[in-house]
Order: sequence, then structure tokens, then C-alpha cells
Amino acid sequence: MSALSFSYDGLFSKRSLEVVLGGAVKHAKYDFAVAYPDPETIPLAGLERALHEGLAREGKNLAYYPHQQGLPELRELISAKLERDRGFTVAPDEIVLTNGSGEANFLVIQALTNPGDTVLTEEYVYSGTLSQIRRAGANVVGTPLDDEGIVPDALDDLIERLTDEGNKPKYLYTIPEFQNPTGSVLPGSRRERILEICHRHGMPLLEDDCYVDLRYEGDPQPAFRSIDDSGIVNYVASFSKILAPGLRLGYFTASEPVLKRAMSFRPGSGPNQFAALAVLDYLKAEMYQHISDVTSALVTKRDAMVSTLGESFGGTGTAWSRPPGGLYVWVTFPEQVDVNKLQPIAFAAGVGFSSGANFAPNNNGDHCARLCFGYESPQKNREGISLLADVMEREGAFRVAPGD
Amino acid sequence: MSALSFSYDGLFSKRSLEVVLGGAVKHAKYDFAVAYPDPETIPLAGLERALHEGLAREGKNLAYYPHQQGLPELRELISAKLERDRGFTVAPDEIVLTNGSGEANFLVIQALTNPGDTVLTEEYVYSGTLSQIRRAGANVVGTPLDDEGIVPDALDDLIERLTDEGNKPKYLYTIPEFQNPTGSVLPGSRRERILEICHRHGMPLLEDDCYVDLRYEGDPQPAFRSIDDSGIVNYVASFSKILAPGLRLGYFTASEPVLKRAMSFRPGSGPNQFAALAVLDYLKAEMYQHISDVTSALVTKRDAMVSTLGESFGGTGTAWSRPPGGLYVWVTFPEQVDVNKLQPIAFAAGVGFSSGANFAPNNNGDHCARLCFGYESPQKNREGISLLADVMEREGAFRVAPGD
Repeated sequence: MSALSFSYDGLFSKRSLEVVLGGAVKHAKYDFAVAYPDPETIPLAGLERALHEGLAREGKNLAYYPHQQGLPELRELISAKLERDRGFTVAPDEIVLTNGSGEANFLVIQALTNPGDTVLTEEYVYSGTLSQIRRAGANVVGTPLDDEGIVPDALDDLIERLTDEGNKPKYLYTIPEFQNPTGSVLPGSRRERILEICHRHGMPLLEDDCYVDLRYEGDPQPAFRSIDDSGIVNYVASFSKILAPGLRLGYFTASEPVLKRAMSFRPGSGPNQFAALAVLDYLKAEMYQHISDVTSALVTKRDAMVSTLGESFGGTGTAWSRPPGGLYVWVTFPEQVDVNKLQPIAFAAGVGFSSGANFAPNNNGDHCARLCFGYESPQKNREGISLLADVMEREGAFRVAPGD
Repeated sequence: MSALSFSYDGLFSKRSLEVVLGGAVKHAKYDFAVAYPDPETIPLAGLERALHEGLAREGKNLAYYPHQQGLPELRELISAKLERDRGFTVAPDEIVLTNGSGEANFLVIQALTNPGDTVLTEEYVYSGTLSQIRRAGANVVGTPLDDEGIVPDALDDLIERLTDEGNKPKYLYTIPEFQNPTGSVLPGSRRERILEICHRHGMPLLEDDCYVDLRYEGDPQPAFRSIDDSGIVNYVASFSKILAPGLRLGYFTASEPVLKRAMSFRPGSGPNQFAALAVLDYLKAEMYQHISDVTSALVTKRDAMVSTLGESFGGTGTAWSRPPGGLYVWVTFPEQVDVNKLQPIAFAAGVGFSSGANFAPNNNGDHCARLCFGYESPQKNREGISLLADVMEREGAFRVAPGD
């Protein structure tokens, strides 16, 4: 059989820069392509200690198939965390542990979507989720964004237009906190307006809050789920971003009918109990200290990337975000820059990143790029951005073609 | 929200004896209901040691999303194991790691099944797989069995009858080695006949070999996949049965088109890397020694159960299997015994097991039961079977009603 090619960042993303050859993933020397956390902050020793304690206490329970909703004690911890950090109360029975937030989104999307549905997302949206919604048979339409995320009036207009056209949207998928790929944060006042709009149109939300713990500046905005207890907000989050994606532990909570329907799409039993035991004991002991360590490391990296963008791209007509949390800087180059063409050239030169077109249900974003700063060191963030500027200069990316 | 009820042993099994109340699973005092391995043989210390080595070597790779097909080194180990133990050669790239064999079956079933299809299984089949095939929209028809599993001529006749009726079967799902629930082993000569029949009818197979390592007597029969390299045999197996279900690690291999189609139904990325690292290093060091320890423990338990069945049910007209491997004894009571009625009574008295009706696509099996002997100690196997006989005697189960 010939080598299979699968992309990590969204199974069906169109132009992933990760080249998969015979199972071996090629990373660029400066890898800003996918949302990896800092490998130095993965608490390997702490997880081993925690696993030892967890196995000593209940390792023999590995003989059982995991609970369909996942380890009960970890769901208790999540229930307490959501109350403390996100201001809403759900019982452990209302929480389902999943293999990363990817499975959580998959299950809720399956529960909410029928083939032929129209589904709204942000104008730029994580390519993996975009693929999941499309694979559920829906037509995805992107909602206009500004620097603060979804523009409520534009959302309202879009719903009315689509409804008039006979394509009333089924639900809105949104990452309100440190959005992937733009890094924007939706202000609380907009969340209230959007909930009012959704209620008026009888439209539920899927709130993906998987980056919320990664705030290094300012205060968290209230979760949609904390403002609205009516049952229209389905809520997904994850431990992948504060611990490690390789641990594959996310979760969701939803109204009882949605939760039951979502569970019916689960391929097997609950998520890995071995990993869940390690995560449980680790988080019980060290969650908030660890989050503080992770965000301290991230803010230094963001600063390294953003300041080098200023030094290297000043005067080129390029704009970029300066997110108060999360893993992404969104870069908007001048309109004539063809990022899809530039991407493989930059990769060959040592800089990996994703083109905006990867994230665009409305097929825009060809002059935009997502840069993930979490994986590389501050020094490599600086070197990589500087190299990217050199490559673009050499390629004449900022020259306006005659006749343009 | 009220307590949700989910069954472990097949999400939609009709009469599971595991009572799930508010997330807490109730086990009978003598639990023969689900296919748990022996908790005493889970190599907790060995897994911890292996995890320590794996994390020291490549723990920082947890920062990456797992490979879509799962940890490459573990797929290399599986490739070598299949060649050594099952006599066929597939490259690591042709193997996909999954969250238990449950996900492996789910993905292959999704790839092979269209709504409205007719699918063949053994006359009694694992309730979880039965649910998965039905949820893919298929009508499941059971193939007649004898003590050695599928009867080839009966299979051929069934395919012809269904084809004549306009319901040509799409594929055959089978557990040829220590079948769940009957424990039977399909002889190699029958496998050759069945392959000839499948080829003649242009019908692929899904071979579920998840119990093959649990042989404690006799020699393994050749895998369908080892006899036939034409691409019609899709092959699923698991580490859950030799290590622990809580580790959630199974795998499958299939022809390239089926593999790619199956992968497209995967909800998120590959399975848990943290658990995979522990399993990899553990199996590299101790796989065959551990399998030997597990099967030694199991044969003692089988003997305890089977000998007590002889002592307690002799002369009642009851028959039972004596499997040379695996986890199940299949009991056929006299036809008048209503096992569905008996089951909750026995559970209340302390003996948990599954009624044959749980496993019966053709709606037979009401006087049959599956007894799993792997979880309880030999002593508890004896006590539980003896207690079951007492309960049945007390309930008058073996009295033939006047007029019968």
C-alpha cells in the first residue's frame, strides 16, 4: 500500500503544511503551523506521580470498561472547575469526558446536525471543526468578524438573509475566547446580544471554550453558558491546551436530550481511564499552579512573536493581532499577498504556518495567516518571524504588480 | 437532570444486568455479566515502569496531536506480532490504532455499511457490535451455528435465500476465535470453505480477532486474513483483553480504500498517546510472558466454572461449552427456562450474567446465557455457579409445567 497522507490539524484541511510521508510528520524548523503547547511545560514528572497514586488507589478498575461518560471523579473536578472558573453549575452527570475536545465537538455536531442543514461559524474557524460540520452534511456559512469577534448586527442580518433564502441556520458554532484562528475575545456585552439574537431565531449555540484557561492578561469574559441556562448553549472544553494534546481529554455538557443524542454517536466506551487517572490526581494537586506556569511561558512567546512582527513587518501594510491569551496570532497581509503560494516556499525555507484559506468557509482569507507561537521558544519565535520576513521580501511579496 | 442510564456492554443492549444509577455501576456479588479480565493480572507496576521509560524518551511529543493512525512504534510492534502470531504481513502504515476494538469495529462498520444493507453475523453476536451494525442502518441476520461456529453450508444457503429475496448480504462479521458470546473456535477447514463462499458471492468479511491471545489449550487456527490476501478480509484486534479495557487500545487493518474510508469516520485524532507509550514499552519487554500469565490465570477460572457447572447442573438437561481460550462459557438451558425472567432474580440474589437474548439478531436465545469467568477468582466462580443453581432450583426453573 502506498503511504497514506493524513493531516493533523483537521483531517480534511486543504492546504496543511504538515507533510505526512509514510507516517512520519515533517515539522518546519520554525513550526508556527499547528496549535502545539509548549513541550517544556508538559508536567511529565507530575503526571507520573499522579498516575502512581491513581493506580495504587483504583488501578484494578482498569479491568472494567470505562464509564460511558468517563471517570466520575474527574467529572466532579470539572463540575467544580466550571463553577469556580466559568460561573455556571452543572452536575457531574451532565458532563461527558471525551477523547480531546475534537471528539466532544464531533458528538455534539452529530447530535445537532442533519444533512442539508445550514450551520453558522465565525468567518474564520478551526479547520478540524469546519471539516466535522461539513462531514455531518451541513453547508457552513461564516459570520462576519471584526477585531472583537462576531459582529452581532451582522449575525442578525445574516440569519435573516439565510432564512429568507430558505436556509434558516440550525445553530452557531463559536470559539468566543482566544478564537482559533484569529485569537480574538468576544466581549461580554456582545455575548448577551448574540444570545438575544439566537433566542429570537430559535437557534442553539455550540460554545467551544477550549482555550479559556490560557489567559495571561485581563479578565475572562463570561461564558455564554453562564449567561444562559435555558438549554440552548452546548458547551465544550478541554485539558489538551493546559496539559498536552497527547493526553486526549476534553469534555462537553449539554441539555439532557442533546447529551443523550450525542452519546449515541460515541464509537466505543468512554475515554482512556489510564490517562484520566493521571490527569485527575495531577489536576487535584496542581491545576492552578500549572495553569499559571503555562500562561507565563506563553506570554513571553507571544511578546517575542508580536515584537518581531513589528520589527520585521512594519511599513509593509501588514496587520496582526496581539491576543490576551491563547496560542494564535492572526496576520493580515496586504491584499496582493498570495499566502497559499507563499506557504510552501516559506516551509521549504524553514518556517511553517497555516494559510487563512484553511479556515475560511466563505473562501476568503487568501492574504491572511495563522501563526502559532506556543510551541517554539521565544528565541525561535523571533528567528522564525525574522526569517519569514526575509523570505517574503526575497519573493517580492510586498511589491505591487504593475497594473494592480 | 435526572440520572442517565448507559450500559457498558453494548450501548444499546436490551437487558444488560449492569444497573447504572447516577453514574455508579452496580456489580453483582458474583459478576459473570461482562467480559472483564482478571484485575489481578493487570500489570500496573510494569505499565508504570514502561510509561516512565516512554515519557523519558519521547514524553515531549505529547505536545503534538497523536498521529492519525496512532503511535508509529506501536504499529511496528503490531505488524511484527501479526506476522509472528497470525501469519500475515501488513506494514505499519496499513494498521490503525483505535480506542479499543470497539472503535475499530465502529470505523470499519461505518466504512462497509450503507443504510438498508443486510449484514450477516454469527447467530449469537456481541451485543455492542450488533448495536453498531444496526446503528449504521443495516438489518442484521444471524448465521446458524453449531459447537464449532458458523456452519459453511448453512451460510451458503442463507446468502442464496437472502439474495433471492432481494437482500443480498453486504458482508459477514465474525469472531472466529473464542467467539463472543459462545466461546466457540471455527476450525481452519471451515474458514477456507467460508472464504470460498464469500468470494463466490463477492462478499467481504470483518474478522474480529480480539480474543486470539487468550488461548490456553491447543493451537490457534489460521486467521481468515492469513488465508486470504485478496483484500476482502478486514481484520480487527485489541490489547484490551491481555492488558486492560481501561487502556482503550485496539487496532484494525484493511485494504487501502476501506482503511481510508474508515479513517474518515474517526471523530478526532488518534488514540491516547500517554497510554500508547506505556503499552508500547511494556509489550516490548514483557508481552509473551504476560500473555502466559494471563492465560494461566484464566484456565484455572474456566476449570472452576465448568467443573461447578457439572456438579450443580448435571441431570437438569443443561449443556455448556468448555472453551480452549477466551472469557466465555455459553450455557444452553432446557427450552422451558425463561432466562430473561430469571436474570433479575439471580442478580438480586448476587449472580450477574447476560441472557442469550442480548446477543441474538434472530431473536432466539431466551433459554441461553453467557457466563464470563475471567473477572472473579476461581473460588468465586465456584460459589457463584453453585448459588445460581440454588436460585434456579428454588425458582423451579427446571420443572416442566403441566401441559408442556
